[in-house]
Amino acid sequence: MDKLLDLLRAQRAKHLDWLRQLGAIPSVSTEDEHRTDVRQAVDEVCRLCMGIGLSAAVCETGGHPLVVAEHCHAAGAPTCLVYGHADVQPMGDPARWNTPPFEPTVVDDWMYCRGAADDKGPLLVYLRAAEAWLSGTGKLPINLKILIEAEEEVGSPNLRAFLEQNRERLACDTILISDTGLFQDHWPTITTGTRGLCYKEVVLSGPTGNLHSGLGGPVVNPANALARLIATLHDDQGRVNIPGFYDDVVEPTAEERAQLAALPFDDQQYARDLGVPSLHGEPGWNTLELGTVRPTLDVNGIYGGYMEPGSNTIIPARAGAKISMRLVPNQRAATISRLFNEAVRARCPAGVRCEIIDHALAEPYYATPAGPAMQAAQLALRESFGRDVALLRSGGSLPIVNTFRDLLGVNSILIGLDSPNCNAHGPNEKICLSDLDRGAETMVRLFGYLAETH
Amino acid sequence: MDKLLDLLRAQRAKHLDWLRQLGAIPSVSTEDEHRTDVRQAVDEVCRLCMGIGLSAAVCETGGHPLVVAEHCHAAGAPTCLVYGHADVQPMGDPARWNTPPFEPTVVDDWMYCRGAADDKGPLLVYLRAAEAWLSGTGKLPINLKILIEAEEEVGSPNLRAFLEQNRERLACDTILISDTGLFQDHWPTITTGTRGLCYKEVVLSGPTGNLHSGLGGPVVNPANALARLIATLHDDQGRVNIPGFYDDVVEPTAEERAQLAALPFDDQQYARDLGVPSLHGEPGWNTLELGTVRPTLDVNGIYGGYMEPGSNTIIPARAGAKISMRLVPNQRAATISRLFNEAVRARCPAGVRCEIIDHALAEPYYATPAGPAMQAAQLALRESFGRDVALLRSGGSLPIVNTFRDLLGVNSILIGLDSPNCNAHGPNEKICLSDLDRGAETMVRLFGYLAETH
Repeated sequence: MDKLLDLLRAQRAKHLDWLRQLGAIPSVSTEDEHRTDVRQAVDEVCRLCMGIGLSAAVCETGGHPLVVAEHCHAAGAPTCLVYGHADVQPMGDPARWNTPPFEPTVVDDWMYCRGAADDKGPLLVYLRAAEAWLSGTGKLPINLKILIEAEEEVGSPNLRAFLEQNRERLACDTILISDTGLFQDHWPTITTGTRGLCYKEVVLSGPTGNLHSGLGGPVVNPANALARLIATLHDDQGRVNIPGFYDDVVEPTAEERAQLAALPFDDQQYARDLGVPSLHGEPGWNTLELGTVRPTLDVNGIYGGYMEPGSNTIIPARAGAKISMRLVPNQRAATISRLFNEAVRARCPAGVRCEIIDHALAEPYYATPAGPAMQAAQLALRESFGRDVALLRSGGSLPIVNTFRDLLGVNSILIGLDSPNCNAHGPNEKICLSDLDRGAETMVRLFGYLAETH
Repeated sequence: MDKLLDLLRAQRAKHLDWLRQLGAIPSVSTEDEHRTDVRQAVDEVCRLCMGIGLSAAVCETGGHPLVVAEHCHAAGAPTCLVYGHADVQPMGDPARWNTPPFEPTVVDDWMYCRGAADDKGPLLVYLRAAEAWLSGTGKLPINLKILIEAEEEVGSPNLRAFLEQNRERLACDTILISDTGLFQDHWPTITTGTRGLCYKEVVLSGPTGNLHSGLGGPVVNPANALARLIATLHDDQGRVNIPGFYDDVVEPTAEERAQLAALPFDDQQYARDLGVPSLHGEPGWNTLELGTVRPTLDVNGIYGGYMEPGSNTIIPARAGAKISMRLVPNQRAATISRLFNEAVRARCPAGVRCEIIDHALAEPYYATPAGPAMQAAQLALRESFGRDVALLRSGGSLPIVNTFRDLLGVNSILIGLDSPNCNAHGPNEKICLSDLDRGAETMVRLFGYLAETH
């Protein structure tokens, strides 16, 4: 094992180049103009897999392509499926980036670029570990399958169909995913659950065109109406105010709450890290709980009327808001979608028209941290990071874990490598290179330990 | 008089070219990139004034320049000051225009372009009338002064100072302004009052950058907070909910209300014209009253987070709204500004920071429709349009009328020429060419009748 870890460490510079090359590709799956860039990122991952000795192929879907790589020559050993994604979020306002978002830049122990943390850096640790085993022993101790898609940031619209058509090919005993976060920098973490997502866009329209605001008085202003409508979606306590929204919520066990409470967490420091004056949420839950085991409703974007600098005295013809809800077990995304639509339509004032657009649905997920593979992962993490593993849920969504559970019948082990301050989806996204190194070491060890779990 | 009107009509094609040339200049005073275009429009007006025999000069101010033209050779006759503005609003979304906003296009009896109605078409009727008198008689029956500024759409920040420095030069007995609307197409109208304006921008900011919405729960979302804040600014009845907002409001007299009620107005048709499903407003007031004698609060623009097509799961770092209030006598813009700031600051939730930007202030205005000049105007309108004049207030603002009253001690006669459907400030702004012709005839007559009022 020490020899394999030495082999791994010797390749660090080359592995950094892998990330540089992959990170430089603007594989923004949400924007059509980046279609060829997304394909290029997929091709690059495929090329890297083949380069280390895996058999790999780019597979077409109804949307962006994906990569399936494999090395299944360990007869009798367990089979492990690795999942990751090569697509990224839009850069947002380029002025907020300190370095160009698609020019990967290393500053101290951090790599900055869109996708560094979500999910290009983390997905590469599995390739690094496989390379160490293959170059050091000529084989892998387990049967390895790797699935890297490129539609995660748009809700993986074609992955379910692909899995349905490839159940045999992707059959496995364990699923490993690194697309979640570390509890704190350098603190090894297994994510035991993820929140679901129900993402909507509400558009209120009134006059045919923008009106001179001197006509104001008898006309319902779509932007005012939208604000009033959004305001109804929370009560004064900060709870989501949609009838039935909390009906299916399962509260965490006393044990899980105690475990969370035992983790050191400094609200003041967290507020400073985010840059907010103070933290607030639904009463009765602490910050970690609010961000993981409780559901939310957030406006992700709002627009309407005159949005440029200066002023323009108009009544907007229309105004819209992108609104997403993070869901927890056992909320069902389809149910919440229906409840949201019913509440919004019922509350839409007379005088404007209401359109609701569906953007994405994802189910929440939870799996108790037990079983030999989960134990192996905790051991490998503890040895590689030098401390006990934190077990907690993620506030984000990972729709794929439910799809895997549905179609392959296997729970996923979510081994996060992103710093809490990695700023995934925001400007200056970054990842800690040492944590990536420790992650790669973890996978070298874990491949070995998983071989012993069968 | 008939000879003068014939002379006027003979020049119709040339006068249409004046409007074409002036309308083609994108003199958007709210956008810095159009600075030279604004100056070009001012130069063009000056050139036209000199072309018809007025002495004219472009005058610098602290911002965009203005034109002062004059022809004061009628000893013993009254002096009339004409005011207009050569600047225009931004075009807004170009996709909503059927023809390019700065390519004046005639369709049937209408001229389409930004500024056709507000205020390039109307301001030119005074030049047309002066030209008829000068070419027909070699003189004007009154002393004429013309002031055309280019900062009306940004609140005329430099006009007061210019008037203070030029009181003597602009001294007059009557002020004529055509920057208001017709009650209905082809229905001559004098506007007896205008609403004031208090235009604000409220920006709420939270996290330093946009956050992944998976972090949602303990963080106050600036867009949600903004919506809740805006929602508080009206009560459930549609009244503005700012303490003290209505304290200084003077309700219209029973006579004025009866006069308004006597005007034919079809709510259903008005809703269809605007494209809205129905009309709504503060209870107890009809549509005409809501739009003229009652104050309002409207969101003119709202923005924050991800505003592009598709979805992005972020919590916005900031969100803002442009909010303007239309004011009625005797509300004071400065008082309303203070009350708005106090209410917004008091209601800004913890967890976000609040910034309030001031965009514009304008006082409301009202003048009873009496006196010989007002009678002369009604006579000239009746003869030119062939029907009795409608007297009503405008829902928009015309800050200059208060400034004139303050500094020159003279009330203004507001002779509207814009159609109710002219869509000033919106896409496909237009003006009825026949109404402009009747407006020019009105001014030919009015110059003569004013000479007899002294």
